[in-house]
Amino acid sequence: MTIQHTVVFRLAHPAGSAAEADFLEVARQTLTAIPGVSAFTVSRQVSPKSDLAWQFSMEFADQAAYDAYNVHPAHVDFVESRWTSEVAAFQEYDFVVGPA
Amino acid sequence: MTIQHTVVFRLAHPAGSAAEADFLEVARQTLTAIPGVSAFTVSRQVSPKSDLAWQFSMEFADQAAYDAYNVHPAHVDFVESRWTSEVAAFQEYDFVVGPA
Repeated sequence: MTIQHTVVFRLAHPAGSAAEADFLEVARQTLTAIPGVSAFTVSRQVSPKSDLAWQFSMEFADQAAYDAYNVHPAHVDFVESRWTSEVAAFQEYDFVVGPA
Repeated sequence: MTIQHTVVFRLAHPAGSAAEADFLEVARQTLTAIPGVSAFTVSRQVSPKSDLAWQFSMEFADQAAYDAYNVHPAHVDFVESRWTSEVAAFQEYDFVVGPA
């Protein structure tokens, strides 16, 4: 059962800044290198009904792969070294397709 | 430029109820029949970090298709006749892939 893990967020950095670009690129490089992560995307959030500006989305084949990602040292290090200080606000959502 | 329009929401109905199933099914039938709507999905939101339980997602080929959907009578009627009274909380997000 594929799980789509997402986080919608707003950076502390100005839009279009080098710091913004660096955060997005390092996130992509770091997170896509973790085993079990597939279909990684970086999207702009463009609805004016939310003030969050970006979304990361990735897929895991099952809960075990998701759990392994969460505790993987590269993920934990990214959260501690970049996410905590550079993200101003965020909301996580995880999706499983189908009412079933 | 494809726009992914999403809404994450919680129903007023009990989980697993007939009213919940009816809402989801009528939404699917109604919204997928509107011109310009593609890749419609109903997903469960399963992260404990949000109390919203469902997501609708759909794609539009461009802003014009999205605008036409928003004002389409079938959409407006669904919002007025079902959404407003049966949805307890929601958050919209629209995504465009890529930092571009």
